[in-house]
This record gives sequence, structure tokens and C-alpha cells, in this order.
Amino acid sequence: MNRIHGGDWEKTSAGALDFSVNVNPLGMPLSVAEAAQRAVTFCNRYPDPACRELRQELGAYYHLPDEWILCGNGAADLIFRLVQALKPKKAALFAPTFSEYEIALNSVGCELRTIPLPRENDFLPEEIPDLSWIEEGDLLFLCNPNNPTGQAVARSWLEEITKRCAKAGAFLCVDECFLEFWECGEQNTMLSLLGEYKNVLVLRAFTKAYAMAGLRLGWCSCADKDLLREMELSGAAWNVSIPAQAAGLAALREAGFLTRTRLFLQKERPRLKASLESLGLTVIPSQANYLCFRAGSPDLKEKLLKRGILVRNCGDYRGLDAYDYRVAIKTPEENQRLIQALKACIYGG
Amino acid sequence: MNRIHGGDWEKTSAGALDFSVNVNPLGMPLSVAEAAQRAVTFCNRYPDPACRELRQELGAYYHLPDEWILCGNGAADLIFRLVQALKPKKAALFAPTFSEYEIALNSVGCELRTIPLPRENDFLPEEIPDLSWIEEGDLLFLCNPNNPTGQAVARSWLEEITKRCAKAGAFLCVDECFLEFWECGEQNTMLSLLGEYKNVLVLRAFTKAYAMAGLRLGWCSCADKDLLREMELSGAAWNVSIPAQAAGLAALREAGFLTRTRLFLQKERPRLKASLESLGLTVIPSQANYLCFRAGSPDLKEKLLKRGILVRNCGDYRGLDAYDYRVAIKTPEENQRLIQALKACIYGG
Repeated sequence: MNRIHGGDWEKTSAGALDFSVNVNPLGMPLSVAEAAQRAVTFCNRYPDPACRELRQELGAYYHLPDEWILCGNGAADLIFRLVQALKPKKAALFAPTFSEYEIALNSVGCELRTIPLPRENDFLPEEIPDLSWIEEGDLLFLCNPNNPTGQAVARSWLEEITKRCAKAGAFLCVDECFLEFWECGEQNTMLSLLGEYKNVLVLRAFTKAYAMAGLRLGWCSCADKDLLREMELSGAAWNVSIPAQAAGLAALREAGFLTRTRLFLQKERPRLKASLESLGLTVIPSQANYLCFRAGSPDLKEKLLKRGILVRNCGDYRGLDAYDYRVAIKTPEENQRLIQALKACIYGG
Repeated sequence: MNRIHGGDWEKTSAGALDFSVNVNPLGMPLSVAEAAQRAVTFCNRYPDPACRELRQELGAYYHLPDEWILCGNGAADLIFRLVQALKPKKAALFAPTFSEYEIALNSVGCELRTIPLPRENDFLPEEIPDLSWIEEGDLLFLCNPNNPTGQAVARSWLEEITKRCAKAGAFLCVDECFLEFWECGEQNTMLSLLGEYKNVLVLRAFTKAYAMAGLRLGWCSCADKDLLREMELSGAAWNVSIPAQAAGLAALREAGFLTRTRLFLQKERPRLKASLESLGLTVIPSQANYLCFRAGSPDLKEKLLKRGILVRNCGDYRGLDAYDYRVAIKTPEENQRLIQALKACIYGG
């Protein structure tokens, strides 16, 4: 299996404007960059393998016991650790969704079930899927808001899934790496229900919300401390660098940054969506910092690249095809450049 | 199993002088720190998941094809990826040795064989161990120079082991993370024999040699490209941060730094060894940047800590006990402080 993601390093290094990765359009807060730079000075030491200070601050910020928290070298690190700790025989994935779940599951030779999300409902699930086949030890991944569609489900819906998994003895991973971009995110996070459901792990990231993808920092929370311990031992020690830990601490002190981000997106998301629709593209409603659209042609990516713009073609996602694309929501000026380039590609020019 | 390593974060944060971790006593080169700091500016991007530029430079530096190289979030990341890619049924470890091999092997439920190193020969293997029980798909770890003893074996000896493994269809991982500290390291690296033996993977790190443990950067090389591809997919994408990649590139341009390091150690290692011996301690000959010694008491660590010095008690290593200790070789002034403190602990004062 090939690993395909946004952010083609060679093309963006050649100067392309990158709409293929989904980081905060406001960029990394200055205080975060400065904290990471200062931390480099101490990098002759090993990082604290337990990320004690960061876990304490996360615990205080999210009202969670710090022993329910594990930090990772990006959320992707934690996806692999979870899969390698649980070693499920069977796992379920919605389609389309983030592809690293499947790569991680393949690394432990797991049987995969796919739950298709209905295109006719803009890939939003209409009812609770049939989970009657789920057995003890099985694992279900769910991304909320979903990547690449941006669609989000309500917590009540998630709770119903959680209960069905709990009944069968199965485990649920809710990936909330894009939750900060959703106005109703905080009301719908599963973090506040972890005390009730020991079979849920919530995945979060600094990477996207604080635009620090190059520093790598993710975390997860779960009331099952034994599982977190297993996850710790399922991968390398010292996995979170000193600059990443320092950046995370600085990010948590950035009062107002996420609010500003959501206000920005509340304005810019419908604007970009309307602009894309005015070009005849079918756009999926999104609660995240990206939009997924369907075009009449599978070669828009190549055409846009000639105009210096990189977008994500979704042809490799299960449940999507080469006519589906994902674009990040960036600054108004950058979004305008995307629209102009798209117009030229679609209508010639 | 507990994960015990040097560098207790709480104790060193409280100001203890840390002899328990083994990084270059000359510290991180300024150019490396500056490169990492500059790189933070670009950290709103994802890192190049393939570490293309770094692999090219490593290839040029070590005369290796870059497709034989894989980079990791520290060497520890690559140990886990190797084990998770190979999923050996049986694995062999020398004792004592670095404990992460065993933790990684446990994560895939592997049967372990221990090959004891003889204390009476200062833990240097006298002959080629009996490997008649090794079968196809088995894995052998070997650390050269060994951690925690500092003893090194000649390449001819390694080649003999390699051939026996090859004959049985087994795989050998040679961990050369401390090789840069050994005067004869370059003549004894297995890197130059990778073309002959597809069943060998050599592990290297920037972490120790360039004192950048907090940034995390390791790499490995192997002529089996399929295995490297498997290792890539056995763990998270984007595992090497942008600052770490930049630091690695800067480190490779630091002409002379490793030579200065070896010259320093050539002088300081015998000095510290003689000082320890003059206190009645039995010191193992070392080719690395640390010394392992045996004392008459198992409570030296606690006693030294009261004097603000942290050392590594080796009681948790297979084949060693609580009377064995490991200390890093640091600056002459720091080493002098260690000796004074040890003197006070041993003779009272």
C-alpha cells in the first residue's frame, strides 16, 4: 500500500502555494515558535520521556487527570501505538477517512471492515451503522470532524456508537485532530465523557490547530491507564522532542488564539465555499479548516500545479475518486488566488 | 516491564550534574543549534516524510545509496520499526546490552534468547557464540561499542556472526550509535559491508555524537530496500521533525567535530578511568564516551545524588547487578567533581 498525503515536499519546495495540507490558516503563534527556538538550547539533554509538565498542563486545561494523557510525536505516532498495543483482529473504518488508520492496522495484519459514508448525504452518516458483527477486542476508528470531508457528527451520535462498542467489548478511537476548527467542537468532544466510557480513546493534535506540523506534537486521552501504559511501551521512548514539548506548553498559554481561528473560519469558510460553488463545483459542508469538492475533471490537480497551486486529489481515498479534491482554507488573499486559478483551469484563460 | 534509562528528568531538572546519559561531552555544535532554531520558522509545514535531502547528504557522506537509508525519530524509533517490520518469532540479545531492544521485541510477543557476555573477560565476547539454534526469520541485536560496557568488537568478528546469521536466514541489527566515539570506529563499521550482506541493518544516531538528544534523530542503513519500506510503513509518517532534519544536515557539515571529540576522549577517558581505579573501583575498558565500573556498594547512586551528581545504576541490566554503575565521560572539571564526590561517598568526608 502506498502512503499518499497532502503536502508534496518537492512541489511545495519548488514554490507552489500549498492548499493540500490542513494547518491553521493563521499560522503558528509567535510565542510557540519562540518557545521552540529557546528549547533548542537544552537539546543536549534527552526529552522528558513522560512529558510530565505538558501532561499536567493539558490535564489542567481540559479538566482531565494527567495519568489519562499520553503525548506522541504527532497524532500519527499515537495511532500506531494504539493499534500495536491493542493488536485487534478486526477493525472498522468509515470511508472516506484519514488513511493512516488503515496503514497502522495493516502493520499488525488486521482484518478490515469498511463502513461507507453516503455521498448522497454529503458523506454524513444518516443512522447508526450496523455494528452487530463487532466482537470483543475489535477496534473502530472515527474522525470528527472527518478528514477529508470536514463533516462532523454530534456527541449524542458518538455516544450511541460508544455504547454499542462497549456492549460488544470493542474499542473506539475518536480522532478529534480538527475539532478546534469547529464552532461547536467543545460541546461535542468526547473528552468530557471519558470517565463514563473506558473503551474510548480521544486523539488530539497541536499540529493542525497551532500550525506546528513540522514540530510534531499530538496527544490522546483515555480512562484506561493500562492501555496508555501499553501504548507507551509499544513504541520508542523519548518520542516527543524538547522543542515540541516546549511549543505545546506555549500553545496552551495562547489565550484567544483558537477563538480567533474559529471566528476567521466562520467568515472565510462560507466565502470560499460559495466561490467554489459559483464555479460549478459541488462542495461538501465542512466544520473544519478545509473543503472537499467534486469537479467535472480528474486532472485539476495537474492543471492547478502549472499555475503554482497544490491541491489534494482524493482519488486514493476509499469511497472517493479522482474527481474529488480537498483544499485547505487559507488567508482571503490566498483563497482568492485559488479561485482565480480554478476559474482559469475550468473555463480556460 | 519497566523502562529504566539514564537522565532522570526530575532529578536533573532539580540541578543534579548528570553523568547518567551518554551524549558528546563537547556539547551540541553551535551551527547545529542555529540550524534547528532557524528551521522552527518553517514548522507550519509538515516535515518531508522521506527526509530526502538528509538521506542524500548521509549517502554522500557515508558512500551509501540514499535508497539504503531510513531516518527515524531517534535510533529508538528505528529499533521499534525494525522489530515491527520483521516480527521475528525468536530473537537473540547479548547481556548486558541496551534495554530498548527487549522492550521492542516484547511489543511483538517475541521469544528471547540471551547470550551472556563474560564478566571475567570484562564483558568482551571471547569466541563466536553458539548460534546453531538460530532459524530463518530470527533476529539478533548487537551493540558496538556495547551499551553500557563500552566494549567494542572488531569487524572481522561481526562478519563471522553475519555469515552464520545469513546461512540460517536470520537477520542482524548492528547498533553503532556510539561508534563515533571510538578511535577505530570507522575501520570497524559494518556500513561498508552492507553491499555484501543483505541480512544486516546498521543503526546510527546523531543524538549521541552531536549531543542533540532532545531533538531526536537517528538513521539506519540496509541493502534490503523492501525491508526499509516495511519499516517506513510500520510506524507513523512525518516522524522526523523539521528542526531535526535541519540539525542533521548542519551536523554533517561540521568538519572536524567528531575528530576533536575522539581526541578529547582519547585523553579524558584514560584519565577518568585511572581516577576511578585509584578509588578502588573496577573499571571496564571502554571505546565509548562512558565508563562502566563495579563498586563495593549498591547505594552509590543515592549517596552521589545527595551531593548533586546523577549516575546510572546498572541493576536493571540483564547480566549486571546493583553494584555496577555507568558514568558518562564529561568535561575535565565535571569529571573532577564526580571523582571528588565519589571519594567522599566511598571514604566518607
